[in-house]
Amino acid sequence: MMASKTDPGRFFEDFSLGETITHATPRTVTDGDAAVYQALYGPRFALQSSAEFARALGLPRAPVDDLLVFHLAFGKTVPDVSLNAVANLGYAAGRFGVPVYTGDTLATVSKVIGLKANRDGTTGVVYVNSVCRNQRGEVVIDYCRWVMVRKRDPASAAPPTVVPELPAAVAVAELVVPADLRVAGYDYALAGSAHAWDDYAVGEKIDHVDGTTIEEFEHAAAARLYQNTARVHFNQHVEKAGRFGRRIVYGGHIISIARALSFNGLANAVRVVAINGGRHVAPCFAGDTVYAWTEVLDRQPLPGRDDLGALRLRTVAAKDCACADHPYADAQGKMHPAVVLDFDYTVLLPRRAAKL
Amino acid sequence: MMASKTDPGRFFEDFSLGETITHATPRTVTDGDAAVYQALYGPRFALQSSAEFARALGLPRAPVDDLLVFHLAFGKTVPDVSLNAVANLGYAAGRFGVPVYTGDTLATVSKVIGLKANRDGTTGVVYVNSVCRNQRGEVVIDYCRWVMVRKRDPASAAPPTVVPELPAAVAVAELVVPADLRVAGYDYALAGSAHAWDDYAVGEKIDHVDGTTIEEFEHAAAARLYQNTARVHFNQHVEKAGRFGRRIVYGGHIISIARALSFNGLANAVRVVAINGGRHVAPCFAGDTVYAWTEVLDRQPLPGRDDLGALRLRTVAAKDCACADHPYADAQGKMHPAVVLDFDYTVLLPRRAAKL
Amino acid sequence: MMASKTDPGRFFEDFSLGETITHATPRTVTDGDAAVYQALYGPRFALQSSAEFARALGLPRAPVDDLLVFHLAFGKTVPDVSLNAVANLGYAAGRFGVPVYTGDTLATVSKVIGLKANRDGTTGVVYVNSVCRNQRGEVVIDYCRWVMVRKRDPASAAPPTVVPELPAAVAVAELVVPADLRVAGYDYALAGSAHAWDDYAVGEKIDHVDGTTIEEFEHAAAARLYQNTARVHFNQHVEKAGRFGRRIVYGGHIISIARALSFNGLANAVRVVAINGGRHVAPCFAGDTVYAWTEVLDRQPLPGRDDLGALRLRTVAAKDCACADHPYADAQGKMHPAVVLDFDYTVLLPRRAAKL
Repeated sequence: MMASKTDPGRFFEDFSLGETITHATPRTVTDGDAAVYQALYGPRFALQSSAEFARALGLPRAPVDDLLVFHLAFGKTVPDVSLNAVANLGYAAGRFGVPVYTGDTLATVSKVIGLKANRDGTTGVVYVNSVCRNQRGEVVIDYCRWVMVRKRDPASAAPPTVVPELPAAVAVAELVVPADLRVAGYDYALAGSAHAWDDYAVGEKIDHVDGTTIEEFEHAAAARLYQNTARVHFNQHVEKAGRFGRRIVYGGHIISIARALSFNGLANAVRVVAINGGRHVAPCFAGDTVYAWTEVLDRQPLPGRDDLGALRLRTVAAKDCACADHPYADAQGKMHPAVVLDFDYTVLLPRRAAKL
Repeated sequence: MMASKTDPGRFFEDFSLGETITHATPRTVTDGDAAVYQALYGPRFALQSSAEFARALGLPRAPVDDLLVFHLAFGKTVPDVSLNAVANLGYAAGRFGVPVYTGDTLATVSKVIGLKANRDGTTGVVYVNSVCRNQRGEVVIDYCRWVMVRKRDPASAAPPTVVPELPAAVAVAELVVPADLRVAGYDYALAGSAHAWDDYAVGEKIDHVDGTTIEEFEHAAAARLYQNTARVHFNQHVEKAGRFGRRIVYGGHIISIARALSFNGLANAVRVVAINGGRHVAPCFAGDTVYAWTEVLDRQPLPGRDDLGALRLRTVAAKDCACADHPYADAQGKMHPAVVLDFDYTVLLPRRAAKL
Repeated sequence: MMASKTDPGRFFEDFSLGETITHATPRTVTDGDAAVYQALYGPRFALQSSAEFARALGLPRAPVDDLLVFHLAFGKTVPDVSLNAVANLGYAAGRFGVPVYTGDTLATVSKVIGLKANRDGTTGVVYVNSVCRNQRGEVVIDYCRWVMVRKRDPASAAPPTVVPELPAAVAVAELVVPADLRVAGYDYALAGSAHAWDDYAVGEKIDHVDGTTIEEFEHAAAARLYQNTARVHFNQHVEKAGRFGRRIVYGGHIISIARALSFNGLANAVRVVAINGGRHVAPCFAGDTVYAWTEVLDRQPLPGRDDLGALRLRTVAAKDCACADHPYADAQGKMHPAVVLDFDYTVLLPRRAAKL
């Protein structure tokens, strides 16, 4: 009998600690991808929008949106890592490397860095470190995530439990600042805001004001653009009988919506350099309206750079709930029912000194 | 206390006569933008569709659709000019300049050319002249629009009323005909119609026959592509409690739909050169089906060119109403209830002589 | 009186045997078109996704998806051939020629190769051979289709009946294998499957497992991308009173969905080389979920090539019906009610020898 040609995806017992997985479908990023991304989220950050603005900052042309890179890197891992996942549990230690330009080709390799069978015997948690590189072998993003994956056979033996130690945040010394990025000529008027790194205070909370309603085509198109094959995003015929009765929006889609909304308050956050952590607190569906607000968690000077500084941010997205009151968790840590995303990341902003 | 990082947009009293506003987010136009535009509207004009056709007419390659340029130029002005607008009242004196090619970067600057407080004390009309230039500083579009904007404080003093004089139409001598555009080799078969400039008569009415139904994702994606941030297009959570209970379609979206429909009857209208005036007579919503018809208002030879002529057109769009009967206004000037757009613009067509 | 400027499309009596029709709107294919196609269908075939993968196989960069080429070639014929069609009856003798790369400009010419009036006097069948070429005159696709077209005047005389002989399948010797395509360095891990041409058996059936739900915007956007003007795809105001009460999805959209789904089981089918036949068994509508399965009809070595082989496939798409049981026809040839597409085509796969 012939081997089945259809790939069922990996189940929990198919993962081995230390194993390396080469993910399929290398992907050349194009101006087309950037334009579809623009139509999906509407970002307005000048560096990614304008070749001229990018050149004024020392780059050869406009880099691709950092989160588009993340989604492309992530999407490749889905058929191998999370096709049989029950839940995407978290992210950590995400570092963006060299900027991606259109014409670059991305490929991702993952290493299994942790395994933990759950007590119920039907699932386990898989930890992977995924590294996405361009055609020159340069890292464009390197991050860890962990997912709860179904077992094929509940009777299969549990592997030894290994839970990797992951940092609460990427250390400043680990951040990759593009070598050629120079912000002496930064044009705050063209960028859309006068607020420099120096103007943000730790603890400051910013309501991004606007909300955007998700459509069914939109999130499925996003997942297709990213070659993310998780079935819950596409198949209403199955999902109508599922837990929610509807297709579930790819969690990364909410991250990109929140980042685009955050322009109103963080217009000069020119680059995402780290994903420290992230949690999809609740699922989103077509018809939901997503709002976002941000808290400044830390303000970090960069070693050897007086023109740029880093801000560690928590951006919270909430659905059908304006964020003027910054909905988050109560004193017991219980999340506000509207919150859908709790995203901890680090961005670069020009320092005021660079204006003078 | 820190300054709020969120930009609330300008209110009526924030505008000063003669002031210049540099709009944020310069934008490099790409093949991706053109393809998304294609998927949104389906235009079939050969000059913008084919590099080969463009080269046969003397251009280096296919220029970007004129209305995509208009929408990108317009979108930049929204955060500064019309975020707190109640209504987009009109356009005038719009002249397209040099063609835009993919790779060009567009930026827009507006000048406040008129102010008029309304008697009710809560709003005023702001007139701006917006000029969008490419990376070489060449004008790609220069137009005026006026909007009714909310006052922040009804008690604020009214500025002196200044209402600019705006022409009923752009004069023929003012039209910019691309210097390198030569239509001697114009291929009418490839262009899709045998009708040259000479074949149109003043007063002629053309039903464009087809209708297209608007989807919710579509108009929001269009606005995001154009970086147009007007809130009414995106947020169903707010709009469900608003005047219409729904998101409102960006008015420019209807202009592009009408232009694409107008191919059937005006296939050789190779370029829009002027926007003489325009009025969004009624709002559109997802689910509406848009039809269009055109009246030839004027047929204008071009000084120094015997290969091209200009037609001044009125294109009327109507919703859920086929346009065989050319719905417009009654004898008292009252608009037919189906009409949503009354658009007065000027296009270039090859002259029959050029065929010989 | 002036000639009507609006093109009503051709009716049955407007076609003459042997006549050649030059279709309008040449089209330069761009990275943007490829990205929109990606967002519409989510294909994961490595050759079309990655410039690096393509170069490793001897091509200058990633070719455009074969079916995007088909849809662009097809779309051009609609205004002339099928605007007044009642039904798209079949395809045959479709051969893909040289690969299409972004920057290429496509134009299509059709020849009328058959005419057959129907007995009811209101319609007739038109057979055309459509040839699409790039800017160098190289054929990119050459295929036949036949459509049932309305007569303008039921009383018009019937032309002599000529029904062309069309092959049941394109012969192996007729297949065009890109001359520079060399698969010695084929990377099965990056391609996403270890299954080579050698691993497939005639009669083997493959369930592609996944399903994808069609949205209204999606199929209309696809048709607009392809400049396909068939009215039934766009106008809900008319279609609500039509036979189905809804807009009908472009049949080719289902072909592309099925091809993208077929990656799961046919990941190494690097190129479609022939369309032997195809039938849109039933219409699709927004909200339908499309599944697909494939039967291997033939396994064909290629003359002079030991690195590549051809598989003739039947891919069947079904709506709202998972395909584990391979729904098709019963013993009497009556189609399973869920089947919407019966598509007979030929693909190239690397041969295992090439791995050694």
